[in-house]
Amino acid sequence: MITTDICIIGAGPVGLFAVFEAGLLKMRCHLVDALPQVGGQLSEIYPQKPIYDIPGYPEIKAQELVDNLMDQIKPFKPTFSLGERIDHLSKQEDGSYTLTTNDKTQIHAQVVVIAGGLGCFEPRKPVLENLETFEGKGVAYMVKNPEQFRDKKVILAGGGDSALDWAIYLSDVAKRVTLVHRNETFRGAPDSAAKVFDLANQGKIDLILSANLKELGGNGHLASVFLEDKAKTKIKIDTDYLIPLFGLSPKLGPIADWGLTVDRNAIEVDTRDYSTGVERIYAIGDINTYPGKLKLILCGFHEAAIMMQSAFKYVYPDQKLSFKYTTVNGVNSF
Amino acid sequence: MITTDICIIGAGPVGLFAVFEAGLLKMRCHLVDALPQVGGQLSEIYPQKPIYDIPGYPEIKAQELVDNLMDQIKPFKPTFSLGERIDHLSKQEDGSYTLTTNDKTQIHAQVVVIAGGLGCFEPRKPVLENLETFEGKGVAYMVKNPEQFRDKKVILAGGGDSALDWAIYLSDVAKRVTLVHRNETFRGAPDSAAKVFDLANQGKIDLILSANLKELGGNGHLASVFLEDKAKTKIKIDTDYLIPLFGLSPKLGPIADWGLTVDRNAIEVDTRDYSTGVERIYAIGDINTYPGKLKLILCGFHEAAIMMQSAFKYVYPDQKLSFKYTTVNGVNSF
Ligand SMILES: Cc1cc2nc3c(=O)[nH]c(=O)nc-3n(C[C@H](O)[C@H](O)[C@H](O)COP(=O)(O)OP(=O)(O)OC[C@H]3O[C@@H](n4cnc5c(N)ncnc54)[C@H](O)[C@@H]3O)c2cc1C
Ligand SMILES: Cc1cc2nc3c(=O)[nH]c(=O)nc-3n(C[C@H](O)[C@H](O)[C@H](O)COP(=O)(O)OP(=O)(O)OC[C@H]3O[C@@H](n4cnc5c(N)ncnc54)[C@H](O)[C@@H]3O)c2cc1C
Repeated sequence: MITTDICIIGAGPVGLFAVFEAGLLKMRCHLVDALPQVGGQLSEIYPQKPIYDIPGYPEIKAQELVDNLMDQIKPFKPTFSLGERIDHLSKQEDGSYTLTTNDKTQIHAQVVVIAGGLGCFEPRKPVLENLETFEGKGVAYMVKNPEQFRDKKVILAGGGDSALDWAIYLSDVAKRVTLVHRNETFRGAPDSAAKVFDLANQGKIDLILSANLKELGGNGHLASVFLEDKAKTKIKIDTDYLIPLFGLSPKLGPIADWGLTVDRNAIEVDTRDYSTGVERIYAIGDINTYPGKLKLILCGFHEAAIMMQSAFKYVYPDQKLSFKYTTVNGVNSF
Repeated sequence: MITTDICIIGAGPVGLFAVFEAGLLKMRCHLVDALPQVGGQLSEIYPQKPIYDIPGYPEIKAQELVDNLMDQIKPFKPTFSLGERIDHLSKQEDGSYTLTTNDKTQIHAQVVVIAGGLGCFEPRKPVLENLETFEGKGVAYMVKNPEQFRDKKVILAGGGDSALDWAIYLSDVAKRVTLVHRNETFRGAPDSAAKVFDLANQGKIDLILSANLKELGGNGHLASVFLEDKAKTKIKIDTDYLIPLFGLSPKLGPIADWGLTVDRNAIEVDTRDYSTGVERIYAIGDINTYPGKLKLILCGFHEAAIMMQSAFKYVYPDQKLSFKYTTVNGVNSF
């Protein structure tokens, strides 16, 4: 059981900055994100693209903003559970909450902040009869830790940047990498595609184009994948892992079942403190909605600052909150 | 008459960033500030101090933030009237406004944004019988343009940084600089004080310590100032200018008389769009108040973004506003 003052669901830019605002008020945070890395949409969808409307930055790459936010919150030593999705929330007798992830990690917190953005990025899955049987038993939808695949046989499927990048990366790590794609050309960066063709020529990647996943085989653990090529020929490949990388699509997911007021995939909040109506649960960033709401990063920052002032009373019920400028008071790490 | 889409009162960080948010929506801005420079409290009170709670900047000097904001809004070519205070506001028949400064500059705008912070920084004035007679006729409370004093005789009064810095600067510009201070020691930076003593030793500054301003003389324009020293001796100094630099204190000033709802020196706004209740007039940044308000720079940024979406309908009554990410759409200057 992880114990913290504030559990933040979602480590996107808004969840990250919330750690800073909590820290100024001496409240500790634990963050949980379904993705294997922090940064939310910025790191997952457009890490190398410039953002122009972060105040004080005429231009900043999305990943650089995430890196800077990580630096900014460092004094407050936040802890993280990455690659885990919060599935359950249960209220304790004293009003606090226990949260449980899909990996059964438990977090006890006085306050819950939902900074879940557009929701969990759920992998788009191939349609295969016995897919679920092999999930976590050879079938994975993201690469959390590449070392897991050292000296293993791995099949990657997909034609975007993730499939290309991981094929290149794992060609040095895995025993054998097979990349399966249903077209002849890739959607990902031309550079990466060229590199993959190059590695295929060197025999470091097995490239199977214009082919589709058809069937999975194995007893308890995945052992083989059957493909079908253009000519409808069935091909059997022995493997330890199959990683379909067909993109991620965000889903509100379990959050939708927590009794919060949800309007078009967003949680309604009170703009006085961005509370949800359920005591001790707040929602900030892209996941909330209120009259006038703009889904902008800079708006989430404001919401985080206001929200933490309100959360203070649950973490320090006996203390009076005093508001001080960082310039005057500094940032006192703990 | 200056004509613009949006007249922003106050060129502090929030007024400056508002130009950016307006620019994304193709709305032009003219800014007016009573101070001779942009940046509001940051440039006036703590330019060299670090701020720690600007999201994405673990630490940034106040003046550097202002400089970056100026860079960020450059594509939208804002125009400025600095060193002028907006005194009057008059509604036109078509709903637009004409604003008038204390220097009689007139600005016509569709929308007025009050980003006036704590209000106008009003100079603390010495108590002298005929002071007002000479205001603008030899008596000035700030140095807007140092060239105005070239080859003139100038008396500066005060013991803080402004008095020291301008004494040093003007010693090279003016015909003669006299610095009058009521104590023996200065409140300003020790470096600057040392420099002033040094220049006094070199005969480049006339330093009169432990003396007070007593009387002004002149016919139409200031011609002499009478001081009284510790021993109650009266001293007459011939001069072209007297610049008392006794600090600035913020006053809501004329804004208080515009029919807005004011609560403890702040303007009440509706958080849906930060409108004031008087059509086409918005208030953002330190000058507004609403339930939960925090006087933070980052909150003002959010308010500016939301507010401009609402102002759009007055500038482009026939167009539909479409919301686009800067990353996707870029920053299209005009
Ligand atoms: C292409 C593109 C360009 C953009 N350009 C701009 C721009 O120029 N300016 C701008 O301000 N904004 C821009 N945006 C929007 C901006 O990215 C979002 O406003 C921002 O990411 C919201 O941050 P957040 O922290 O609220 O949520 P997100 O960044 O979406 O992060 C939420 C995180 O929560 C996690 N999560 C959700 N549910 C759970 C759960 N149950 N358990 C565990 N984890 C969970 C998700 O995995 C995700 O990582 C752009 C977006 C895109 C896609
Ligand atoms: C020492 C100190 C430390 C601080 N530290 C922090 C910090 O760490 N973090 C943080 O977020 N905030 C901090 N603040 C607060 C921060 O400076 C303010 O929130 C910020 O300046 C507000 O910006 P603004 O643009 O709303 O107003 P201001 O910066 O006050 O600018 C308003 C401008 O409007 C002008 N004006 C007013 N009325 C008129 C008129 N009628 N005509 C023409 N011009 C007019 C004024 O001259 C002024 O220049 C600090 C403040 C101080 C004093």
